[in-house]
Amino acid sequence: MSNNSRSKAFTRLDVDIRRRELLRVGCELFAAQPYDDVWIDDVARHAGVSRGLLYHYFGSKRGFLTAVVEHEAAELLRVTEPDPTLPPRQRMARVLDAYLDYLEAHPQGYRAIYRGAASADSGIRAIMDANLRHQEQRLLDALTGDASASDALRLAVHGWLAFLIATCLAWLEHPTLDRTSLRDLCISALDGAIRASGTRPAGRPEVAANRVDVH
Amino acid sequence: MSNNSRSKAFTRLDVDIRRRELLRVGCELFAAQPYDDVWIDDVARHAGVSRGLLYHYFGSKRGFLTAVVEHEAAELLRVTEPDPTLPPRQRMARVLDAYLDYLEAHPQGYRAIYRGAASADSGIRAIMDANLRHQEQRLLDALTGDASASDALRLAVHGWLAFLIATCLAWLEHPTLDRTSLRDLCISALDGAIRASGTRPAGRPEVAANRVDVH
Repeated sequence: MSNNSRSKAFTRLDVDIRRRELLRVGCELFAAQPYDDVWIDDVARHAGVSRGLLYHYFGSKRGFLTAVVEHEAAELLRVTEPDPTLPPRQRMARVLDAYLDYLEAHPQGYRAIYRGAASADSGIRAIMDANLRHQEQRLLDALTGDASASDALRLAVHGWLAFLIATCLAWLEHPTLDRTSLRDLCISALDGAIRASGTRPAGRPEVAANRVDVH
Repeated sequence: MSNNSRSKAFTRLDVDIRRRELLRVGCELFAAQPYDDVWIDDVARHAGVSRGLLYHYFGSKRGFLTAVVEHEAAELLRVTEPDPTLPPRQRMARVLDAYLDYLEAHPQGYRAIYRGAASADSGIRAIMDANLRHQEQRLLDALTGDASASDALRLAVHGWLAFLIATCLAWLEHPTLDRTSLRDLCISALDGAIRASGTRPAGRPEVAANRVDVH
């Protein structure tokens, strides 16, 4: 490696680290307050950089929030990547554990994602919709063992993701239950929704056969 | 009644009818498209009134959306008023039936409420939060027979309302199930969530005793 290319590599690394640090600071600020109350000057001060540098990296405050949500939503998907070698029930249980691990270890990231989703920006909503569809499909694959899913199961999983998000956000605000109880609550609601979706199987008995029961 | 007071009463009635008609038109337009794509000129044209009259009644486009959401959310609460003379399970089932009646009869109103909720306006979010808290408390009262609820049951009901809303909105877009299957799905998810909340009752066994089972 020549001196020149080494210095270029160093610069890229430097840019990448700085960008990640800015996203981390943005995540904390957006998680703590509504979008309109976050000021670029505060972000710059917290990160120890100039306001100009923030605009250089992200274009606008809206662009910055979009980058924060995109980064955190991708991170949540990454850490909850299912293991396709596991049988459906265990795969599903492992994904939920990873999800709750992320929630506990990274509450700001979780809050920033869903505050961002509530920001009415169409670009951010598109990111979140794609993210939710990805999570839904993964769940359906985990529950059916990659077989096709009935309409009822699709609707059940769609509703349950909303249950999971609402429950996790409320739990972050008021952690009145221990984590095991939270997990049991989520599993049991999913189990109930799946059971109903299996009662009218429309020719797909594998749904009922694969009900989640991971206590 | 003097002629004078009769004419005043007529005027008030007239104003009220016209205001309701504007809210109805607004509801249809806000239900059909995102907030930013709704133009006051379109509302005025659909309602056959002047743009000035709309501003006279509601102050601004934001004020108009707020009035639409407030009206529809209050209507949803009104038609799902529980009957306190019924035992818990039936009370709960009756409320869900009334909820689905509203959804089927008035899909625009339902969509407008939750599109409004996604509009990031803090005034509208406050209306929606109060509305959801009201629905949550009603559900808790119906489930426990007006006894106090455990933290687990509170979280279960909070999550389940998100399940219900997400499921109903998706069902309006793609009514792939019949109404009975949708109802079964919602009841069964609630039943699952309640069952888990009763497994760690924290000294309140009435929760488990009152589980919903209304097939």
